[in-house]
Amino acid sequence: MDIEAFRKAGYQAVDAICDYYTKIREVPVNSTVEPGYLVKQLPDHAPVKGEDFSVIARDFQEQIMPGITHWQHPSFFAYFPSITNFESILADMYATSVSNPGFNLEMVVMDWAAKLFGLDPVFHGNSGIGGGIILDQVKEKNTTVNGSFEDDFAEGTGVTTGVDGARVKATQVIIPEELRADRTSKMVMYGSTQTHSIGKKAAIILGMEFRALPTYKKDQYALRADVVREALAEDSKKGLIPFMLIATVGSTNTGTIDHIMAIGQVLQDFPTVFLHVDAAWAGVCMALPELRAQLQLDAINKYAHSFSTNFHKWGLVAFDATALWVRDRELLTSALDVTPAYLRTAQGDAGAVIDYRNWQLALGRRFRSLKVWFVLRSYGVEGYQKHLRGGLEMADFLEKMIQDSPDFELLVPKSLALLVFRYHPQDREYTQQELNALNQKLHAALASRHDIILTQTVLPAEDGEEGTFCIRFSLGNARTEKQDVEKGWDLVGKLAHDVTK
Amino acid sequence: MDIEAFRKAGYQAVDAICDYYTKIREVPVNSTVEPGYLVKQLPDHAPVKGEDFSVIARDFQEQIMPGITHWQHPSFFAYFPSITNFESILADMYATSVSNPGFNLEMVVMDWAAKLFGLDPVFHGNSGIGGGIILDQVKEKNTTVNGSFEDDFAEGTGVTTGVDGARVKATQVIIPEELRADRTSKMVMYGSTQTHSIGKKAAIILGMEFRALPTYKKDQYALRADVVREALAEDSKKGLIPFMLIATVGSTNTGTIDHIMAIGQVLQDFPTVFLHVDAAWAGVCMALPELRAQLQLDAINKYAHSFSTNFHKWGLVAFDATALWVRDRELLTSALDVTPAYLRTAQGDAGAVIDYRNWQLALGRRFRSLKVWFVLRSYGVEGYQKHLRGGLEMADFLEKMIQDSPDFELLVPKSLALLVFRYHPQDREYTQQELNALNQKLHAALASRHDIILTQTVLPAEDGEEGTFCIRFSLGNARTEKQDVEKGWDLVGKLAHDVTK
Repeated sequence: MDIEAFRKAGYQAVDAICDYYTKIREVPVNSTVEPGYLVKQLPDHAPVKGEDFSVIARDFQEQIMPGITHWQHPSFFAYFPSITNFESILADMYATSVSNPGFNLEMVVMDWAAKLFGLDPVFHGNSGIGGGIILDQVKEKNTTVNGSFEDDFAEGTGVTTGVDGARVKATQVIIPEELRADRTSKMVMYGSTQTHSIGKKAAIILGMEFRALPTYKKDQYALRADVVREALAEDSKKGLIPFMLIATVGSTNTGTIDHIMAIGQVLQDFPTVFLHVDAAWAGVCMALPELRAQLQLDAINKYAHSFSTNFHKWGLVAFDATALWVRDRELLTSALDVTPAYLRTAQGDAGAVIDYRNWQLALGRRFRSLKVWFVLRSYGVEGYQKHLRGGLEMADFLEKMIQDSPDFELLVPKSLALLVFRYHPQDREYTQQELNALNQKLHAALASRHDIILTQTVLPAEDGEEGTFCIRFSLGNARTEKQDVEKGWDLVGKLAHDVTK
Repeated sequence: MDIEAFRKAGYQAVDAICDYYTKIREVPVNSTVEPGYLVKQLPDHAPVKGEDFSVIARDFQEQIMPGITHWQHPSFFAYFPSITNFESILADMYATSVSNPGFNLEMVVMDWAAKLFGLDPVFHGNSGIGGGIILDQVKEKNTTVNGSFEDDFAEGTGVTTGVDGARVKATQVIIPEELRADRTSKMVMYGSTQTHSIGKKAAIILGMEFRALPTYKKDQYALRADVVREALAEDSKKGLIPFMLIATVGSTNTGTIDHIMAIGQVLQDFPTVFLHVDAAWAGVCMALPELRAQLQLDAINKYAHSFSTNFHKWGLVAFDATALWVRDRELLTSALDVTPAYLRTAQGDAGAVIDYRNWQLALGRRFRSLKVWFVLRSYGVEGYQKHLRGGLEMADFLEKMIQDSPDFELLVPKSLALLVFRYHPQDREYTQQELNALNQKLHAALASRHDIILTQTVLPAEDGEEGTFCIRFSLGNARTEKQDVEKGWDLVGKLAHDVTK
């Protein structure tokens, strides 16, 4: 394709994207094709001769788009929002055109974001101590943090970071000689039953045990400090090495927020433990000063060794853009730097630029900072806050409707823009089992539709009962308006009525 | 930004990209700014008020572009090519606009690519046994393969794949009970001194030993089967578990190709070893039937458990697009599936679609198959082959010029489009040390320029000598023409003359 052909195809693509967003409210949110439909439609090998791009662009619309679930649709209430926007598309155009990692911009925008979210200066890249990096996804974050910290054990020492006022000092913790040889099999990662499944996946990759600590309905499924203390003491007594704890701010199940201040205090007695705070969904709300206390910002600033949030959920930057900040960048670089001769540069050796390669698993990286820069500039702090508050307002609106519906119950209090509810008719007494069956039927009825998407989850069992099947109604998408929430809730009510008939 | 503002900004971005490629030959290939220049130019926090996109787009050109090294420049001869193109830009526009993983297309294009490269049908997704996946980068590939295979050990068994003609059968290998408890510390990954540093990084993450087996100049630094047999036998005798071997087709240093057929035969005696073939750079050349024997395709089809190549190097698809094929997909899915309730779908449970989530480290993924689809259709097999042959022709042209320059020597024979040379003046005898000093000076002189980029490497020491410092001249970029190669080689000659003065 030559330059003028690209100009034509590029204009067409811009127009096609404009059309898509003009009509997005009118299309079914859920794809209506059969799974595997595409294999049947496409040839089973690449064409021998090159094809004109107008044909390819047409096929994209006719063959690929029908299989797409529209995450930007105003009636997409599943999982969490995964927002893309025009700023991100423009950034990806420019970024792909130069195919360059853009190290220079990354430190700048990550410091902008650290300030936007109120993170302590030690997490800023210009502190020279900690800093931020944009990774592709949560998973890379987890193995990055884990892999690097694990390596400290390989050195026979674990570096942990004690906090002294606003200043940070690194303390070396000596791992007893006899524990070194088989350290991996003795190291334990902790999370709660509400920690995202990706935590367990990280432990699998690293070859260590993942222990999911219990949480309780009475605590709204937040991880408690006394539970942490008991588990760590128990494992330490057994000769295991508590190695990392993942605390969550805004869990995927219910948006729960662990008791990080109290947990951080407990961890002072267990200096081998690295505290990572996973705020994948909720973290961007720290841009709202009125929510910072609820989101435990002070505890994060005081105790977290690392903190992450996904711009690419509610945070207005297209997938993939996981932001990770670390209190001590040396924990990453000392573990992950394997620079051979063919990768050395004068600037990198001199330390004049941050070589993010040594902060992550991979060698290369996409120019992801550009989309963060475009978004933060185009929205400004005020626009960014307005967007977040819009999602919170929608959630208030829905909460009121749920509270006004006697046959529905919220299973935990609303968390930011997430509501977790179940159908619980008041016509007679229902057992937990009956309610689960009823709500599974309701969810199946919802899942069969193409004008709304809601996802389910199961809250942990307690007292010998079975877990609680429930439905998540997740708000925050940029195009969702009150009318969409209202329509969605009416539909839930109507289908619930149908399934009890 | 509303729809009409995006239309305007989108057209402008398309035009800006057209301008960039119209003038790319005229700009310095290497950035001329000081490292860290950007921090000084940009504000230290995000703006409070949103800004107009025309201002942001202007700043991109004025502030960001001067810091960009132009990998698409015709005089970019460093590392390996990292090609982007208009097809990839268009795909990223569409992909970012829907922000959807595009599972349906991925199996189709990976089967197209498997056929394009001549991989055995067992590696095709439609075999139901093996299959391909597009990962972000080599690193994810390595930990994916390793993590999953390691998990088989956790089950107390290692699944290895014996080959019986064109058919594959899985055999269970029982790991002795006494080796299970501390398996990770006993597991060894192998590569050669020429294996990419990313192999060692994978071993660090997984917490196991990486053993770099020796290679020799007389073998052009290819890994030999007898060296493999000796090392594996030695480690097995010590009670260690040989766990994985990374063989390389087209090493980063010199483009060397390991003796995979012979190595594969040796591995039949070591059934715990998973053979991964890393053809990151060279693998795409399997699209050329005339190169398949040289690239050991038969051995890969017969013995490799997994095979990977990067579309995003010479392969015409913008970063990131690492293709990984596995002979037995269950090795990945059995290790990496941790599906919780909130991620279950009816289609996924029924197996109607491949849930690539369980083939990789991460949960989410970008719609990377779209750019592969656009590229393969737009170029066609013939256009793809023509592009590769173009790079090979440039390399032939340069090889002849080097051979005709009495003061230069090739340190290994040309490999595809990579030439590794050093300056070796014939005016008197030089020691290895003197030649290294001379070539370091030459490389420093080249590195100080902005009209060419070449990278250096060091070949392993032999017989007590120090390693050999040399310069890599890597071809294959889409815009490079004979005049650029000629100009580049003239410059090398001129600077070499200067440094000996």
